Amino acid sequence: MNVLAVDIGGTHYRVALVNQTGTILSVQRAPVRREAGAAELLQRLLPQILAVSGQAVEPVQAVGIGFGGPVDFRQQRVMRSLHVAGWDGFSFRDWLRPHLDVPLVVDNDGNVGALGEYRFGAGRGSTDMVYYTVSTGVGGGIVLDGQIRRGMHSQAGELGHVPLLPSGPLCTCGARGCLEALCSGPALARQALDLIEGGSCTSILTLRFQEQKTLTARDVFACAHEGDPRAVELLQRARHWFSSAVRAVVRTIDPDTVVVGGGVGTAPGFLDGIEAAVNEHPLLADAPRVAVKAAALGDDSVLLGAAAMAMVLHPPLGAQS
Amino acid sequence: MNVLAVDIGGTHYRVALVNQTGTILSVQRAPVRREAGAAELLQRLLPQILAVSGQAVEPVQAVGIGFGGPVDFRQQRVMRSLHVAGWDGFSFRDWLRPHLDVPLVVDNDGNVGALGEYRFGAGRGSTDMVYYTVSTGVGGGIVLDGQIRRGMHSQAGELGHVPLLPSGPLCTCGARGCLEALCSGPALARQALDLIEGGSCTSILTLRFQEQKTLTARDVFACAHEGDPRAVELLQRARHWFSSAVRAVVRTIDPDTVVVGGGVGTAPGFLDGIEAAVNEHPLLADAPRVAVKAAALGDDSVLLGAAAMAMVLHPPLGAQS
Repeated sequence: MNVLAVDIGGTHYRVALVNQTGTILSVQRAPVRREAGAAELLQRLLPQILAVSGQAVEPVQAVGIGFGGPVDFRQQRVMRSLHVAGWDGFSFRDWLRPHLDVPLVVDNDGNVGALGEYRFGAGRGSTDMVYYTVSTGVGGGIVLDGQIRRGMHSQAGELGHVPLLPSGPLCTCGARGCLEALCSGPALARQALDLIEGGSCTSILTLRFQEQKTLTARDVFACAHEGDPRAVELLQRARHWFSSAVRAVVRTIDPDTVVVGGGVGTAPGFLDGIEAAVNEHPLLADAPRVAVKAAALGDDSVLLGAAAMAMVLHPPLGAQS
Repeated sequence: MNVLAVDIGGTHYRVALVNQTGTILSVQRAPVRREAGAAELLQRLLPQILAVSGQAVEPVQAVGIGFGGPVDFRQQRVMRSLHVAGWDGFSFRDWLRPHLDVPLVVDNDGNVGALGEYRFGAGRGSTDMVYYTVSTGVGGGIVLDGQIRRGMHSQAGELGHVPLLPSGPLCTCGARGCLEALCSGPALARQALDLIEGGSCTSILTLRFQEQKTLTARDVFACAHEGDPRAVELLQRARHWFSSAVRAVVRTIDPDTVVVGGGVGTAPGFLDGIEAAVNEHPLLADAPRVAVKAAALGDDSVLLGAAAMAMVLHPPLGAQS
């Protein structure tokens, strides 16, 4: 069985043909032009879907889409996009049906990435898994016994918006001190800039800022690697917040595995000590019980999760024989 | 169908005969003597179980037990009790079988109380419910689509140990700044005593302390009711912590209903503003989506949850006709 998988992110989107073992047979990638809105993206996406679908030796059985924004799963409609105008209430099903009449399923990319890692990545073999993606934003997804936990309002797994610091920095969601406002890439960069502006930074981080006139999370990691004590401290604090957030979720649902992806989440050193901190609770046994692992699929978590979601929609006929 | 329900708490235990509509037909109550250990309690419990069971007009079909400490649900064994010695690894099944050979199920009182409220109390009609009991400790339980979420290590729903304040007071679990360490009855009392010892309290709370030589959470609520600004502030802070903890759990699993029980949780004013705070997230729609309700069963949440758990074990035969 072949399925079509689509990953629509904040900066680019991809369309792929995936077989039932999770192998990407072909893929197309294109940028998201935020200012151009949803209609422009859909105009480019449709011929790409049809082209990739046309390449398939066997007919495409289903389409799975991971969307970078909240999706009402029951209604199978996009709620809204924070990045691009024109998505509110959009139905991929209604849009694609006249052109390719196969079952289609869409969900937000946190849930879909979780399913990808669960089926094909670092979560293979686990039963109940929690997934974080820590990059420009912080997303998440929860897979319980093979099923994505979507919740009563398609709002479960909003793990970037677990509150950690009531008086902390403003989050993209409007609340203060969410995990995303403390540990995302932009949050780390801003914390580094604050240090420099506050004058308390006289080290590698400052030199790099003077060279570049800006800083990214990547710079923070690089400076920490070079031994800059301020950068090291900044990452220690971020790890501390992150482990608090993970502990809150682990105390709540008690999974066997936590998988962490994203540019920040998989940066060298970010996960150091997190597993130990999460398992430190004296009410748990001495040995670590919850495994904390880096995601294994890199940029493909969402694409392969979208494929897995489509496969569940149409279970492989070949597998039954 | 009649079942036998047992609630073993930190200060007393109860044995009841319950029918399938959740009516308590008879009940016995006795103190827990902490220093005397598990064996002494069991010696008293056995004849009470047999007496209550003997009163039943129809034979007792099953036994449900809510235990005030961690229980390994899969093994159906007590893990340990923090209050009373001698419970480690205890099997109620092995213990009772020679005397009363009916199916038996045991779980920790947080989970069992959650099921009680879900089936017979404030959670009736909900699909996915989160339950808190805020009293001497802070416990919890999660019911998803009628099933208690127990987790991979029988550790789900440990909602009192969600971390909120990394540098906060030491919790009974050994960690710092857990919800329990900030919002339990003893935590509120200690915060009030700290205010008085710090000399920053010159009001009703201080007068009461001088009269009584001690303070309880009940005093804090009473003084707040009388308008003591320090007591009011203390409860505001507790509500703030509590709403943060609830938000973390709601962002994670997205239930439709949160039910709050326990002496502190149901004290007048404790829940004021919690529902609004939990639903404040701009990513959710404007109208409150998650209902936050006071528990409806008072002291009977665990007893009726134990009955509900026993009923599931043996579904009512009469109900099938």
